[in-house]
Amino acid sequence: MLLAMSSLQKRIENAELLAKVVPVEEAVKHVTDGNTVAISGFTKSGEPKTFFPALARHFTETAPASRITLLSGASLADDVEGPMAPFIRKRGPYMSSAASRKLIHSGEMDFTDVHLSAFARNLMYGFYGEIDVAVVEVSRILADGSVILSSSVGISAEALFRARKVILEVNTAVPDYTGFHDIALPAVHPKVGWPLPLLNVRDRIGTPNVEFDHRKVVAVVESRTPDHPVPFKGTSETDRRIAQNVIAFLLQCRDQFGWGERLPPIQSGVGNVANAIIGELYTSPFQKIRFWTEVFQDGMLRYLEDDAKFENASATAVSFSADGRRRFMELFERCRDKLVLRPMWLSNSPEIISRLFVIAMNTPIEVDIYGHVNSTHIDGSRIVNGLGGSGDFFRNAYVSIVHTPSTRPLKDGRTVSCVMPYVRHIDHTEHDIKCVVTEHGYALNMDIRSPKRRAVDIIDKCAHPHFRPLLHAYLDMAGAGDEPRPTDLKALEGWWREYGEACTSFPKGG
Amino acid sequence: MLLAMSSLQKRIENAELLAKVVPVEEAVKHVTDGNTVAISGFTKSGEPKTFFPALARHFTETAPASRITLLSGASLADDVEGPMAPFIRKRGPYMSSAASRKLIHSGEMDFTDVHLSAFARNLMYGFYGEIDVAVVEVSRILADGSVILSSSVGISAEALFRARKVILEVNTAVPDYTGFHDIALPAVHPKVGWPLPLLNVRDRIGTPNVEFDHRKVVAVVESRTPDHPVPFKGTSETDRRIAQNVIAFLLQCRDQFGWGERLPPIQSGVGNVANAIIGELYTSPFQKIRFWTEVFQDGMLRYLEDDAKFENASATAVSFSADGRRRFMELFERCRDKLVLRPMWLSNSPEIISRLFVIAMNTPIEVDIYGHVNSTHIDGSRIVNGLGGSGDFFRNAYVSIVHTPSTRPLKDGRTVSCVMPYVRHIDHTEHDIKCVVTEHGYALNMDIRSPKRRAVDIIDKCAHPHFRPLLHAYLDMAGAGDEPRPTDLKALEGWWREYGEACTSFPKGG
Repeated sequence: MLLAMSSLQKRIENAELLAKVVPVEEAVKHVTDGNTVAISGFTKSGEPKTFFPALARHFTETAPASRITLLSGASLADDVEGPMAPFIRKRGPYMSSAASRKLIHSGEMDFTDVHLSAFARNLMYGFYGEIDVAVVEVSRILADGSVILSSSVGISAEALFRARKVILEVNTAVPDYTGFHDIALPAVHPKVGWPLPLLNVRDRIGTPNVEFDHRKVVAVVESRTPDHPVPFKGTSETDRRIAQNVIAFLLQCRDQFGWGERLPPIQSGVGNVANAIIGELYTSPFQKIRFWTEVFQDGMLRYLEDDAKFENASATAVSFSADGRRRFMELFERCRDKLVLRPMWLSNSPEIISRLFVIAMNTPIEVDIYGHVNSTHIDGSRIVNGLGGSGDFFRNAYVSIVHTPSTRPLKDGRTVSCVMPYVRHIDHTEHDIKCVVTEHGYALNMDIRSPKRRAVDIIDKCAHPHFRPLLHAYLDMAGAGDEPRPTDLKALEGWWREYGEACTSFPKGG
Repeated sequence: MLLAMSSLQKRIENAELLAKVVPVEEAVKHVTDGNTVAISGFTKSGEPKTFFPALARHFTETAPASRITLLSGASLADDVEGPMAPFIRKRGPYMSSAASRKLIHSGEMDFTDVHLSAFARNLMYGFYGEIDVAVVEVSRILADGSVILSSSVGISAEALFRARKVILEVNTAVPDYTGFHDIALPAVHPKVGWPLPLLNVRDRIGTPNVEFDHRKVVAVVESRTPDHPVPFKGTSETDRRIAQNVIAFLLQCRDQFGWGERLPPIQSGVGNVANAIIGELYTSPFQKIRFWTEVFQDGMLRYLEDDAKFENASATAVSFSADGRRRFMELFERCRDKLVLRPMWLSNSPEIISRLFVIAMNTPIEVDIYGHVNSTHIDGSRIVNGLGGSGDFFRNAYVSIVHTPSTRPLKDGRTVSCVMPYVRHIDHTEHDIKCVVTEHGYALNMDIRSPKRRAVDIIDKCAHPHFRPLLHAYLDMAGAGDEPRPTDLKALEGWWREYGEACTSFPKGG
């Protein structure tokens, strides 16, 4: 007798695993107090969107004192992490959840900030102990029990490999992503590592599916929740000017270092400035553009339809606005040809970033006049989201660009400078940054120059004119004579007061 | 007619280049004001020891206003760099010369501090402009005009490849190093990079000689000056205790991560603590030890005679004390079998360090309670030597260890703490350090923990007991309640005064 197959049955080709389908309220019971749980998800894509809120309800109702260790690829949607936050004792390696942030700031949640490429390897090395449960969103289960992931890869393969128990969340609201992924695991000592045989952005070195011991699967649940859309604010005039300065710098490099039309692969951060740069790049003279990056996002979609402009892209996740997702769905088949999604140890691999001559770009919280970058901590104490892959890319890039608006308005009406004499937390040292860009211009750190000369350049070319005299004043106060790197916390103390006044007197619309 | 061959003739098998032998006073005329000069030399080994002092004399006598840009592998012997320092306008990427340091501090010499692996690649990419002259010490010139380097590789191959003019210094006072080297050049965009086919410490992926266009050679000079010996102070009780704590940590890792007897390859810094660790390692249970490091030094010599204890080593230079060099000469042939010398872009390659699971170790100036490392600047302003390869190794290591005595005596009788609440210059962020070691113990940063918990651990296990109460006091002052990462420059200001008193009251014999 022929039965109409449900959309879930169509996605589960393995009978054994189909038999393990249970209501999510049953599945959550496999996670208990004290567990270490590793899940799928990267930049609010591909998380277990059904399981996690259900687990939060389960803990709330039956075991409110439960606390787990939660490991993910990178950030989860607020709807996913928010309800679970009170039950997370330890968290890594990246989050953008207001609920988690609050608990981290109050000391109730332990958070360790790790380079994403290192995090995935550390997980495999056993540095975070045993993984009790892996919870991974998949778009399809193959007949052999292996799985096809969905819109992100992150640490999903490592989680499935290492965990004692596995819960699969089959998402029937997302398309079947077969053909998007390139899955491989890092070697673990004392096995000998291998040279990654990847020479081009499009190369594949692994398998399209994740192979793992599917006897570890204790439950399969269905999800009908698509990825939560990422808000997209549009491009401001400042964003556009930053983007134009980035392109101007790249054109200078092209002429100076003989790139011709062949732009090295681009890594782009996430967000409005990143999207503005991707937009400016589209109208630049560069052709056959390649992206080697973490996230394939809205601004890259137009490239898919232009074979002259675009060659291909590699990422560990796709992440779109609501509009972007509609466009992505229309271009889905074309995207499958042009985009490879990889585990984050590969997307962020120092070996590959260096070999492919990737151009790295990222937005910090603030930079100092010597080019040190604070990406994570406001006032040196309060973490915002985490380091992510910024260090993987900045350090190993052919050319590394830190781009930021020169100022940032605060809610209280004041405006702060994003170019500071000193930053109280450093994630990326001056050794790793080759170019600082704001809407006012760009300053280089590529040649042999003393830090002070570099500082003068960063102030004059990148700082907002309102703050330039104050920044020069610090350099003069701190530096005895011709000292090459004036750094003086005492001078800074007096400086800080004048700076406070300058933040208040910043001209409206300035 | 048969003539007795001079020792120089024996070393120069190419007739064309033999014809270019000139007195060093002639050769130095090829370097003129404004030139960029790239030379051999790494850790006071293999520099052009005859040419450079002669160039200094030439400038002093004929053109005292001359200033050049000097690029080397790493540090040069004081006898080599000292006389030249007044004529150096720009310097990279590492120096340990008091003369250069003084000029850098006064702002007369520009110095840029770059990761050594990145420096070599940047040089090839053209970031430092054209190389006017390469001056390279060699131990032999082959019939085809290619050369065999001597006791260091550093950037010699890049210099020979990129320079417009080449001067070879054939050193007849050093042995013929044929068979020691593994020479390859990094790829340059837009050429496609290649996966480095290196799976074991002993693997060779290049050539034993440096092939370059020898028509660029404008002069060949003879040198009869052996490498200047590196002073070696011997091992103190503190050094020995640090070394014992390093071994204790490695044994813990062995048990926790299933290493068995197979210790991952060791990178060791240079100096007394490093030599103490190498000594302790020799008497540890680990067998078949491999070194993947920058410098093969005194402490490693005893390994050469013990096939059970030692497998092999890779470095970019050998550097010995006077005693060490005598022993090295006795063991020269054995060393040729067991040691490979490579360009510093390879010895410090992130790709290889990561693939081989290297254990990285280095001594800083100071660490802070969160594990941030200051390797280069006293008081945040005055550079000591430079970053060297510490970042290449710390960042990409399987396990990274920063080891330091807990205190350091000053010349004025006070004693400072090397574990500080805050360091004013950061070269290595907390993200890159997995273990802090002093003579008192070791503290880990491998699991998921808040920075404050880590800080308590570093204070209690690593700081000197005399300074522990003060460090805890800072944490309490700076942190409002349970804040996970107390950082407060205002609290620090008051702290600093009490700390000053504690440095003065530090007990003699501490």
